[in-house]
Amino acid sequence: MKNLEKITSVHNQHVKDWKKLQTRKQRTKTNTYLLDGWHLVNEAIQSDISILTLIGTQEQFELHPDILTHRFDTYEVTSEIMTDITDSVTPQGIAAVVSKPEDDLQIPAELTGAWLLLDQIQDPGNIGTMIRTADAAGFTGVVAGRKTVDIYSPKVVRAMQGSQFHIQLHQGNLIAWIEQFKQNELPVYGSELNEAAKNFRKIAPSDNFALVMGNEGHGMSQELLDRTTQNLYIPMAGQAESLNVAISAGILMFQLKQK
Amino acid sequence: MKNLEKITSVHNQHVKDWKKLQTRKQRTKTNTYLLDGWHLVNEAIQSDISILTLIGTQEQFELHPDILTHRFDTYEVTSEIMTDITDSVTPQGIAAVVSKPEDDLQIPAELTGAWLLLDQIQDPGNIGTMIRTADAAGFTGVVAGRKTVDIYSPKVVRAMQGSQFHIQLHQGNLIAWIEQFKQNELPVYGSELNEAAKNFRKIAPSDNFALVMGNEGHGMSQELLDRTTQNLYIPMAGQAESLNVAISAGILMFQLKQK
Repeated sequence: MKNLEKITSVHNQHVKDWKKLQTRKQRTKTNTYLLDGWHLVNEAIQSDISILTLIGTQEQFELHPDILTHRFDTYEVTSEIMTDITDSVTPQGIAAVVSKPEDDLQIPAELTGAWLLLDQIQDPGNIGTMIRTADAAGFTGVVAGRKTVDIYSPKVVRAMQGSQFHIQLHQGNLIAWIEQFKQNELPVYGSELNEAAKNFRKIAPSDNFALVMGNEGHGMSQELLDRTTQNLYIPMAGQAESLNVAISAGILMFQLKQK
Repeated sequence: MKNLEKITSVHNQHVKDWKKLQTRKQRTKTNTYLLDGWHLVNEAIQSDISILTLIGTQEQFELHPDILTHRFDTYEVTSEIMTDITDSVTPQGIAAVVSKPEDDLQIPAELTGAWLLLDQIQDPGNIGTMIRTADAAGFTGVVAGRKTVDIYSPKVVRAMQGSQFHIQLHQGNLIAWIEQFKQNELPVYGSELNEAAKNFRKIAPSDNFALVMGNEGHGMSQELLDRTTQNLYIPMAGQAESLNVAISAGILMFQLKQK
């Protein structure tokens, strides 16, 4: 342990700064975000992500003294502070501030593997679930377009359950990413609710491609649909009008990439 | 219109009774539940479900006078009452009390089609999404086991988006249902996170079978796993520990039954 400071006041400046990480503005400004709970903190420790600050209650540090053997900047706080800085109703009493990758990554010149692109997805639970599903399907990475909600918001972070430590996760301009996939001769599949598109079951599974999922209400933007290699649809029976976007993404990902 | 009564007080007995439909106890006692919003109310009107009571604000009745031509018992209420009786933050100003099927249905002697069985599912959003997905996959029905949360709670009703009007929906004893499927020579597939189970991609798609999904945390109960024809798993790559249960259900349903 580099340093252990005890904080008991919610008015302490550190507490205010951690709490502000609930806003996109602060996350962007500091290039950091907050991990809440043991599962995520342990995943971060096992990965090569650097933990900038470890925050825990006295109770948790007593129950898990091992965590204090790391050389993190460490703060002991009250349960009240923990509730204040996380958006959990019942926080576990452990949290960490970690670096988040730069938003404006240079798109790699060489792209391989299976990639999921998220166009204007609005629901944090859907985004987190899709990232977690991409991880389980063996995808290489996920790219969130600029109009998709921030992938480091507390709700997305909770829903992705640590998958950001297993796969590549970027935010960027989807048109530029699509062009780069095509330059690398990877097919780019769009998804739409249109029977004129190709039945997804007619696409042979492969290891190298990109799949684009669109907004919950109105689907993918036309400017992206126009740039894909092929647009796919999932044939639906019954009178259901649509599938939840995360369910559609799961069905498509596990069809297109098969272990 | 049979009857139009205006109510302005949240202390009115009808208002209290409608609000109580947020509890399972009241839904069971009255064998009714509440539909909130135009989409569900319109689906109910188009189906053969009988609307017992229509509840709307003056604004909605003025915008949609057609709704008043039906012979429903109709109540005009304030926005405040609407917020009180629904669990929406921003209710649309239209709701209906409808009959819900009896819980203790006699299991049909002849069972055909594809069926989804829900064992101890706890999250209302997951249940509603699975029912909606079963509808889109062309399933015949869904049976919620007794330990699955009530499928007519406001959150489930919102998530299933009207699919209860398209497919059969029952609550019952899953062991008895499984035995009945087997008597009808329908295979019953369990789902588990165990590579000793059969890879789901090895099962030929068909039109007649039952699929059981289990609890979010600990999966299907052993007593059900022991009674299935075959238990399936979804091979996962990467380090993700599991898939969300509704995603798994979507992947399995769209693989096992193909249009």
